[in-house]
Amino acid sequence: MLTLKRNIKINLEYDGTRFSGWQRQGNSQDTIQGTIEKHLFDVLGEEVEVTASGRTDAGVHAYNQVANFITESNLDVEKIKYQMNNVLPRDIAIKDIEETTERFHARYNAKSKKYLYRIWNDVTPNVFLRKFSYFYPNQINIQSMKLAASYFVGTHDFKSFCTKTNGKKSTVRTIYDIEITKNGSEMNIVVHGDGFLYNMVRIIVGTLLDAGIGKINPKDIEKILLEKERQSAGITVPPNGLFLMNVIY
Amino acid sequence: MLTLKRNIKINLEYDGTRFSGWQRQGNSQDTIQGTIEKHLFDVLGEEVEVTASGRTDAGVHAYNQVANFITESNLDVEKIKYQMNNVLPRDIAIKDIEETTERFHARYNAKSKKYLYRIWNDVTPNVFLRKFSYFYPNQINIQSMKLAASYFVGTHDFKSFCTKTNGKKSTVRTIYDIEITKNGSEMNIVVHGDGFLYNMVRIIVGTLLDAGIGKINPKDIEKILLEKERQSAGITVPPNGLFLMNVIY
Repeated sequence: MLTLKRNIKINLEYDGTRFSGWQRQGNSQDTIQGTIEKHLFDVLGEEVEVTASGRTDAGVHAYNQVANFITESNLDVEKIKYQMNNVLPRDIAIKDIEETTERFHARYNAKSKKYLYRIWNDVTPNVFLRKFSYFYPNQINIQSMKLAASYFVGTHDFKSFCTKTNGKKSTVRTIYDIEITKNGSEMNIVVHGDGFLYNMVRIIVGTLLDAGIGKINPKDIEKILLEKERQSAGITVPPNGLFLMNVIY
Repeated sequence: MLTLKRNIKINLEYDGTRFSGWQRQGNSQDTIQGTIEKHLFDVLGEEVEVTASGRTDAGVHAYNQVANFITESNLDVEKIKYQMNNVLPRDIAIKDIEETTERFHARYNAKSKKYLYRIWNDVTPNVFLRKFSYFYPNQINIQSMKLAASYFVGTHDFKSFCTKTNGKKSTVRTIYDIEITKNGSEMNIVVHGDGFLYNMVRIIVGTLLDAGIGKINPKDIEKILLEKERQSAGITVPPNGLFLMNVIY
């Protein structure tokens, strides 16, 4: 008997606050992958493995994480979406779903990604954004941050901007653009790149803020990149301000 | 010895999710008033009673709740604000503080209030707004809601739009304006009135939604007002979509 296998692509939104990240660890229910796979089993009656465009770390959110899974179920995709959103915990939702070509792979086919880092730059904390932004009360010179950001654009060895490097793997990545906007006390930093090392966006943001408060000069970024030493760069800002915004295929 | 008493006015923001409302109940720490008074005692070294413009119910939020308290402390107001924001739980913040005239009373002097009710009107739930909006997936005719809203404007007996009425007290109130806007899936309803009965905004919104989905005609509002029966009106929508937005003095 011929079994039809379908490749399903999903677009996910999640509040990462209480999760230890995307990647399943044993049978733990505190990962996003593990939670989605558990509920897909309930809905499809079949164990499936969900592949995301990439892992997100503990506490990191997603507006649009893309993932795919192979299933033998013939349940209509809109019904899968509807039933999943009924059973998933309220901090994970499937926004879009579609059947795609068998060749589509959420990780291998991802061409680039955009991450958003949100900062609440005010002397008074914002109670509604406390889980979704970094409270940073210091006075910031946004022009210095924009100038510092320009030095990241291009292809560089980002070894200074990652933790836990695997000595053998390349730490060269390309940043296409860093966009910094401020609206009242809300600052948004969008980083678009072909791939990201562990904690890379959070260390870039920590270093941009150092330029914003005058702790470093914007052009010091060039030197920090060349030093290839984690301690040359700024702090790893907290995960609660970070959102996987878009995956481009 | 002459003791100087100061009247301090504060502007508060809070996420009401985990609180059983504004009003202190015994020594419980799960009220907003109780939490603020406890920390004011730590900061001022003195027991004070904090009076708000009005109570907010369990689960209701505030962007700008106004309150005042009398203190003998001579601590600079900006220091009170700073120290309070350091010790308060992260779901309550003091946004502004000032010393005001001894006659100012946050409740008695309030002329009118604006409440915002937020609705997430989409078939897919929004994980980031789940605690700050009412997820309402039904299709809505916004023109019908706006027409229904127009019947509330003016001075009416709102007995049909409140729970737990005290038979003796007047249920007549004036609504100055109801503004309904929709931006994508986000719907905002702002109700401006001289005073509000228990659950009044939430029952008005529940009834407006009934008009939006065609369960009632917009002009039925006139009849519901005249019937003075709670069961004539719509449901009490959940507290998580409700925000005290502004108090006008």
